[in-house]
Amino acid sequence: MSSIRFFFTFILPLLFFSFHTQSQNKDSIALRKNFDYYLTKSNCYKNLEFLSTKIESRLSGSPGAAKAVIWTKQAMYEAGADTVYLQPCMVPHWVRGQKEVCASIHNKTKKQITYSVCALGNSIGTPKTGINAPVIVVNSYSQLDSLGEANIKGKIVFYNVYFDHKHLSTGTCYGETVTYRYAGPSKAAKYGAVASIVRSMSSINNDFPHTGVMGYDTVLTKNKIPACAISFSGADKLLEELKNNPSLTLQLKMNCEMLAKELSYNVVGEIKGTEKPNEIIMAGGHLDAWDNGQGAHDDGAGVVQAIEVLAMYKKQNIKPKHTIRAVAFMNEENGGAGGKAYFEDTKKNNLKHIVALESDAGGFSPRGIAIDTIMGAYKTVLSWKPLLDPYFVQYIKIGGHGADIQYLEKIGVPLMGFEPDGQKYFDYHHTADDTFDKINKRELELSAGVIGSLIYLIDTKGW
Amino acid sequence: MSSIRFFFTFILPLLFFSFHTQSQNKDSIALRKNFDYYLTKSNCYKNLEFLSTKIESRLSGSPGAAKAVIWTKQAMYEAGADTVYLQPCMVPHWVRGQKEVCASIHNKTKKQITYSVCALGNSIGTPKTGINAPVIVVNSYSQLDSLGEANIKGKIVFYNVYFDHKHLSTGTCYGETVTYRYAGPSKAAKYGAVASIVRSMSSINNDFPHTGVMGYDTVLTKNKIPACAISFSGADKLLEELKNNPSLTLQLKMNCEMLAKELSYNVVGEIKGTEKPNEIIMAGGHLDAWDNGQGAHDDGAGVVQAIEVLAMYKKQNIKPKHTIRAVAFMNEENGGAGGKAYFEDTKKNNLKHIVALESDAGGFSPRGIAIDTIMGAYKTVLSWKPLLDPYFVQYIKIGGHGADIQYLEKIGVPLMGFEPDGQKYFDYHHTADDTFDKINKRELELSAGVIGSLIYLIDTKGW
Repeated sequence: MSSIRFFFTFILPLLFFSFHTQSQNKDSIALRKNFDYYLTKSNCYKNLEFLSTKIESRLSGSPGAAKAVIWTKQAMYEAGADTVYLQPCMVPHWVRGQKEVCASIHNKTKKQITYSVCALGNSIGTPKTGINAPVIVVNSYSQLDSLGEANIKGKIVFYNVYFDHKHLSTGTCYGETVTYRYAGPSKAAKYGAVASIVRSMSSINNDFPHTGVMGYDTVLTKNKIPACAISFSGADKLLEELKNNPSLTLQLKMNCEMLAKELSYNVVGEIKGTEKPNEIIMAGGHLDAWDNGQGAHDDGAGVVQAIEVLAMYKKQNIKPKHTIRAVAFMNEENGGAGGKAYFEDTKKNNLKHIVALESDAGGFSPRGIAIDTIMGAYKTVLSWKPLLDPYFVQYIKIGGHGADIQYLEKIGVPLMGFEPDGQKYFDYHHTADDTFDKINKRELELSAGVIGSLIYLIDTKGW
Repeated sequence: MSSIRFFFTFILPLLFFSFHTQSQNKDSIALRKNFDYYLTKSNCYKNLEFLSTKIESRLSGSPGAAKAVIWTKQAMYEAGADTVYLQPCMVPHWVRGQKEVCASIHNKTKKQITYSVCALGNSIGTPKTGINAPVIVVNSYSQLDSLGEANIKGKIVFYNVYFDHKHLSTGTCYGETVTYRYAGPSKAAKYGAVASIVRSMSSINNDFPHTGVMGYDTVLTKNKIPACAISFSGADKLLEELKNNPSLTLQLKMNCEMLAKELSYNVVGEIKGTEKPNEIIMAGGHLDAWDNGQGAHDDGAGVVQAIEVLAMYKKQNIKPKHTIRAVAFMNEENGGAGGKAYFEDTKKNNLKHIVALESDAGGFSPRGIAIDTIMGAYKTVLSWKPLLDPYFVQYIKIGGHGADIQYLEKIGVPLMGFEPDGQKYFDYHHTADDTFDKINKRELELSAGVIGSLIYLIDTKGW
């Protein structure tokens, strides 16, 4: 073997390996330091406590949302942002009004039985006197179609669809059933239903009804009917009552209404890059939350994790090469106006994003990272798996990102979604039980640390 | 190339690969079916509800422990055991007595301030009138030694040692600090301390004191002093009071005592193997639990997961080749008599164990599997990683197993420990807050499914 060939065959790979290993070691030390910061000095838990418990509920258009915008701006400055922009967007302003009533009269005792329900977001209310009508139970759209107008007209359709617990991902359970919440009301209205009730998209059996957005399909039917969700145990109780008295009359009162649109904002905090200030690395979550709970897991967690990315740089005195952005999106829950406004602004100003990452699956222990992107970037992140593995990143997979960043895909921005352990997410999701006391400090910090460390690796190593 | 060489070079590997793949596919399908069972039909959540909420606290020697033994025997038969043995062992019978009192008088207001404390297991009580003494704060054993008798005699030693939150494993935080709980009292007594208080081994800041076992080192000193734990926030409050009044007198009343030993039992449920009935595959947890809580995570979860291994075979009509054993150990918390009795019985009857697995780290989402064993078995389990990966098994590592099975290592039994996500374990561990409502059904079932699937793979494929 020639000495040159010997060099290329044996020595160069060793040098490369040594260089590669040194580089990995350096990254490994940097990440360890970073997690020391997150686990002992970060502010995300305290920030989430404030956002969840000191500001009233923050559904788009509400006074709470307006206060949350002001607080987030301040929190981003305190975390170390050079600049914080308020990015305007017009948002729907839906209000629940007085607590909903859903009741029937027991067949024999003649006592009133009440069920825990909540109006779905964007639904119209009932007349002030409520709706009194018999109930028809429907287990699928095909059953709805077979029943048809003859059986449905004048009745309240009760979509009784369960999570299929065989799925390992609770997101899949949700994805399979959420159509009955979103599109069910108009499909029922087409056959003359007077209201729609859906079994809550819940992974556990308790008495919290789960709200969430619905939409009227005005192409399908001009008939808009009130739509609500019933708690899991309330649904069981209603089925039991219907077994004893199939023709019972259900009373439903909902006081919700859609008001005029309001001006609101995304909050965008920035630390300018030292080498490539025109290239943006972005981490975000959404600031709006359903009005029935505190929006601690959905998605206060994502917001404070994004804010903490700024603090990670500032408090450790690390200067990012690229511009780092933390974004708190408005109106993810019932319209997506913030995500659209961010996309329009990005396009208009021809801003280059290296990556957009969203965390919108709760503040639980880390589990994985999802990427929708060009293969090169995926492979690069996959090569960082050994660095992230000690911090409970089990997988890096293709496919999956938050709703607010979806539009950026059109202009070729690689999208990422942070995925925490999801087994409990749909226990709390969109309920009055999504409160700060369901957040574990270490779990929130570890997940924030994974997000920060990913941003750090992308900034220092790029694609 | 000769046709024979061609065959060996290309065809045989393909056949082998195909066979290997078919075998993996078969296992993969079997595991998927198994998880369908666990996620939709298993009884472990209901069993844990009963054990945690319908039977009173079950510390060794207590009436609750005796009832739990009877219940477990019945539950194992109902799960499908051919035979259930009660394996006798003599256990310590320590009782807490009336609730502890710990209080001081405020320097200026003269009002009483109380602190949440709980006696440590096996501790002696105070005299009926309590102990009234000044407090000395100690942050380490080396500080204790420097202070010596001159500063310690006649005082209450307060070990103020915190978890180091930089550790990724909360088990490591616990491992580093638990010596102050176990051995601290005698070390303080050697210098003439009249009582010992330890900051709770807690991963969060709340007002629950964490009990746990302590032991008197009678070689070090004959002087036995009362020992208790103070809640995290109680410890902070006490430090604050001491800052204002370093010479404050603390009053401590503990009514605990050690009674005469009691006869108790391990519960061992078996399904006889069809091919190798004399070879045992064992899964276990411990049935005893601290008296202040319900022992849902520690270790009701491990017990019902072990019972469910029997049900997994019986309800799916799978006949194991080896004998499958579920074991509910007695007295893990304050003596280990059950673990020793199991070992003695195994040795006396010359029973062959293929593996002993213990789950004793809570009923959370799966995270990993630890193995203490001959390398061959480790490598085999590691080769199953792709099969277990979809079920949230992030790692398979060497080292780590439950306390009850430790003695079996002496006779060459491979030991395994199931490791769930551990971030919250020391929030609840040994407190009144370790209750059934902290258990998530899906998380418990997924972890039970991993344990059952491991046992299934060991039975069908062996080492």
